[in-house]
Amino acid sequence: MTLTLVLGGARSGKSAYAEGLVAGFPPPWSYIATAQAWDDEMAERIALHRARRGAGWQTLDAPHDLAATLKALPSGRPVLVDCLTLWLSNRMLAEADLAIECAALVEALASHGGPVVVVSNEVGLGIVPDNALARRFRDAQGRLNQGVAARADSVLFMVAGLPMKVK
Amino acid sequence: MTLTLVLGGARSGKSAYAEGLVAGFPPPWSYIATAQAWDDEMAERIALHRARRGAGWQTLDAPHDLAATLKALPSGRPVLVDCLTLWLSNRMLAEADLAIECAALVEALASHGGPVVVVSNEVGLGIVPDNALARRFRDAQGRLNQGVAARADSVLFMVAGLPMKVK
Amino acid sequence: MTLTLVLGGARSGKSAYAEGLVAGFPPPWSYIATAQAWDDEMAERIALHRARRGAGWQTLDAPHDLAATLKALPSGRPVLVDCLTLWLSNRMLAEADLAIECAALVEALASHGGPVVVVSNEVGLGIVPDNALARRFRDAQGRLNQGVAARADSVLFMVAGLPMKVK
Repeated sequence: MTLTLVLGGARSGKSAYAEGLVAGFPPPWSYIATAQAWDDEMAERIALHRARRGAGWQTLDAPHDLAATLKALPSGRPVLVDCLTLWLSNRMLAEADLAIECAALVEALASHGGPVVVVSNEVGLGIVPDNALARRFRDAQGRLNQGVAARADSVLFMVAGLPMKVK
Repeated sequence: MTLTLVLGGARSGKSAYAEGLVAGFPPPWSYIATAQAWDDEMAERIALHRARRGAGWQTLDAPHDLAATLKALPSGRPVLVDCLTLWLSNRMLAEADLAIECAALVEALASHGGPVVVVSNEVGLGIVPDNALARRFRDAQGRLNQGVAARADSVLFMVAGLPMKVK
Repeated sequence: MTLTLVLGGARSGKSAYAEGLVAGFPPPWSYIATAQAWDDEMAERIALHRARRGAGWQTLDAPHDLAATLKALPSGRPVLVDCLTLWLSNRMLAEADLAIECAALVEALASHGGPVVVVSNEVGLGIVPDNALARRFRDAQGRLNQGVAARADSVLFMVAGLPMKVK
């Protein structure tokens, strides 16, 4: 149906805003989480996000198999994907072929039958990172964001919790 | 009266633009500076900002007691707070309880009787920082910006010296 | 004639969008490249950009003498400058007087007879860099972007391949 990309920096209110968009559709809603609790810092963030969501949400974990998880959902089910940045990071660490996987993911997002809201980070607006892995990640994230944005019906850039309409 | 948040990156023209907004009200104007001259680099920046402001400005230094300084101002006095990022950095280094202090500051900003223009940095649009302190700061800054933006009448995102209207 | 600044982060689609703007004018088009192939990573990027451009483009290399290269172009010739960030980096490493050179460049861009589209990076929206050289670069880039934006007829901020109108 419709594909919305909610893009922004760290602590820009992306997840809360995206949840509100999905909750504008009739429940049940699917929440596809891509986070992996590597350490306490991340575990705390996951718990905070989970606590904020109330009833009506079905949570699915897909740190790696995001496209397949999307395809397995009932047709027409509103879904929140939070977020592409952690998924991309997981796939890069797993040494996946990012060009192929990102193309497949964009296709899966654009062809889902129901409304899809996707959260992703903009990471390219600082100084060039010192290490090559960070530069590779930054490039891959930028390309993935462009790929999703090109197919999205709506793109929002979050600034201090507020959405700016990009598309 | 009105609360305006001027948000942007380094060298995006935040301070000059914010000064222009305050100077649109009748003088005298209060300038609350949060900078501390730790080193020559910072001392030079403070001197440059001070030189740009002309007559009509009363300068107050509040590297730590920002909310109290705001409350002590005459009611209705137009005020520029420059900036939240340095204040937050000072309070984090002082090991303050940031959640409590940020909530109190947002309340003080929103309840001042006169027009208030607040400058703050957006710092979350680069690659995740390597060190944990920088990540903590980035999170705290994002939350503070969201808190101020939620209460603000107007939010501007500066790009190359030009304001983009967010709210 | 007209000066357009296309500003954005890494992999935000700046170059492709800027090429489309210039190609909207009748050919031939001049492409002024500021990149230097220091290593394989950069050589690959240059080759990718070159391959994307088709016939109708005249490529000039100006890693250092950007203002002079602009002035030597036939009057009225549409030109793409890609990008200010690499030029600035080259000039900083050459220990040039950046304030003087940036002022001269802005003047050359604004006084060219034909349509000019300039690509530049926004680099100030992350955490303050650890090293002093990166901070100096960030400051110089922000000032240069402000200088060009002030003289530009149009300023676009790229987000995920999509232009946001700033001016």
